[in-house]
Amino acid sequence: MIRIGIVGYGNLAKGVECAIHQNPDMELVAVFTRREPSSVKILTPNVPVVSLQDAAAWRDKIDVMLLCGGSATDLPEMTPALARDFHVVDSFDTHANIPAHFAAVDAAAAESGHIAVISGGWDPGLFSVNRLYASAVLPEGKDYTFWGRGVSQGHSDAVRRIPGVADCRQYTIPVPEAMERVRGGETPEFTTRQKHTRHCYVVAEEGADKAAIETAIKTMPNYFADYDTTVEFVTAEELARDHAGLPHGGSVIRSGVTGWKGENKQTIEYKLTLDSNPQFTASVLVAIARAATKMYDRGITGCQTIFDIAPADLSSLSREEMLAHLL
Amino acid sequence: MIRIGIVGYGNLAKGVECAIHQNPDMELVAVFTRREPSSVKILTPNVPVVSLQDAAAWRDKIDVMLLCGGSATDLPEMTPALARDFHVVDSFDTHANIPAHFAAVDAAAAESGHIAVISGGWDPGLFSVNRLYASAVLPEGKDYTFWGRGVSQGHSDAVRRIPGVADCRQYTIPVPEAMERVRGGETPEFTTRQKHTRHCYVVAEEGADKAAIETAIKTMPNYFADYDTTVEFVTAEELARDHAGLPHGGSVIRSGVTGWKGENKQTIEYKLTLDSNPQFTASVLVAIARAATKMYDRGITGCQTIFDIAPADLSSLSREEMLAHLL
Repeated sequence: MIRIGIVGYGNLAKGVECAIHQNPDMELVAVFTRREPSSVKILTPNVPVVSLQDAAAWRDKIDVMLLCGGSATDLPEMTPALARDFHVVDSFDTHANIPAHFAAVDAAAAESGHIAVISGGWDPGLFSVNRLYASAVLPEGKDYTFWGRGVSQGHSDAVRRIPGVADCRQYTIPVPEAMERVRGGETPEFTTRQKHTRHCYVVAEEGADKAAIETAIKTMPNYFADYDTTVEFVTAEELARDHAGLPHGGSVIRSGVTGWKGENKQTIEYKLTLDSNPQFTASVLVAIARAATKMYDRGITGCQTIFDIAPADLSSLSREEMLAHLL
Repeated sequence: MIRIGIVGYGNLAKGVECAIHQNPDMELVAVFTRREPSSVKILTPNVPVVSLQDAAAWRDKIDVMLLCGGSATDLPEMTPALARDFHVVDSFDTHANIPAHFAAVDAAAAESGHIAVISGGWDPGLFSVNRLYASAVLPEGKDYTFWGRGVSQGHSDAVRRIPGVADCRQYTIPVPEAMERVRGGETPEFTTRQKHTRHCYVVAEEGADKAAIETAIKTMPNYFADYDTTVEFVTAEELARDHAGLPHGGSVIRSGVTGWKGENKQTIEYKLTLDSNPQFTASVLVAIARAATKMYDRGITGCQTIFDIAPADLSSLSREEMLAHLL
């Protein structure tokens, strides 16, 4: 049994709890929270909710801590701090800051003799590993990542901060023509606008200036200004009825050539279609936790990523089962 | 520089030669053949063609031998034999015999202290690794492998052995409706007939009984009897003009559920669209050869598969480059 602790209890943590429930070799030992523990009700019977400040006392009772905080402020502090007492897995997803996060976590984990796996999930995570496989196999080529159709929580939050907005769900949508060109073996240079569009379902506050909200969204730098954005006003009831889920997905496509003169086109596509983004991310984290215990048993410590994990380590199957049924 | 030897010089070996040419950290040292060496002309200038029986003399000049023989009779002998003197990579693809091949190769490689990676390519190979990732991430689910549209060389050969057949190209074609059901999140049980159809372009010999040929194909056990097969007679010129290539591909799709009660559908698809099956297989073998050298440098010997290879080992990029650009 792999004994798991969860830090946090938002959507991702709840997904981890569900994923542990699906894996018979895993056991949830405790949920750690910065809130008042008695205020947090979890799904798994007979598992305690504990104050995060008491985590160190659980050192010998937990094999891997799954850190379900946010990348902006939680994980940069939390992952190195907890790697002093535990093997840890996080889903740090601010791509530009990964090298710095890696260095900080590696220093803490190497010193304490633990293994820490950062940036698990699907992007970074399974999408990254597919970019790596595809580029290793097709060195002459170009890869493209398309996201969606799915809800971007960061973009939804950005719209919610606009005065007069009561609520929002923002969908990121890949441009079908762009995907078809790449699938057909072309290797175009796309602008941001040519790859994705954005669609916002917005609930306006009573009496708000809808035209002003629409302009504020469409001209917002980084988030929307570089995209063709559609703003659609809906009622709170419509938003709750039609947009309660957190679907997402996307494709990593590499289009390359082989042959003495590059005469043959070869295309690799990895595609996810997810009803629940946080539950899928959580499912990847749980498989990574399994791998972390196997790697530590072979003497591996310090910071690792999904690039360093032999696929066999993610699975609960024996080598014999894998050779007979999966290879 | 990783110094590569190629054993054999058929379509797969020619693909390996082309792939080495695309990878600046690789160098082709020699091609080994069972034929008279002077009868084999290769593409790479200034590289010798050597009799396979003299291979042992090249022990210290070659880092990895890529074995490009067939799975029926060549590799079961060749891979264990060459693993006594070299690190080796093969593309053994008779799925049912993989456990026995693994055991034979492991015994030889472990004894000689070499690393041997068997069953590289795309199926077995990249498709296998995607079945493994997907099943580890979505333990409650079912996976499906669809092959094609592409040329099956084994089935083309089987038709060529029928009396009155001068030549044939057999295409394996996935049934679109079956793929769409799986992509939509269903997990049906399919019969063989429901997943794939087969299409044969046949050149008949002068005066041959075409009706008899068609019956012989459609009723052939294992190869065709369980499929809806279409037989189309063409001229030798049409076959050469329209069916000279060896395209292939396919999809591995896993449809699973997550959530406390399995309430959310999650679908993973890995899809290959290949103009040249042997060149793509060869490109995978060359990346595996790179990984084999890195793994051996860490002390790993014996028989390994793509399941045991950390993705980072397949790439020529540094860890820093991977973290900054691929993760």
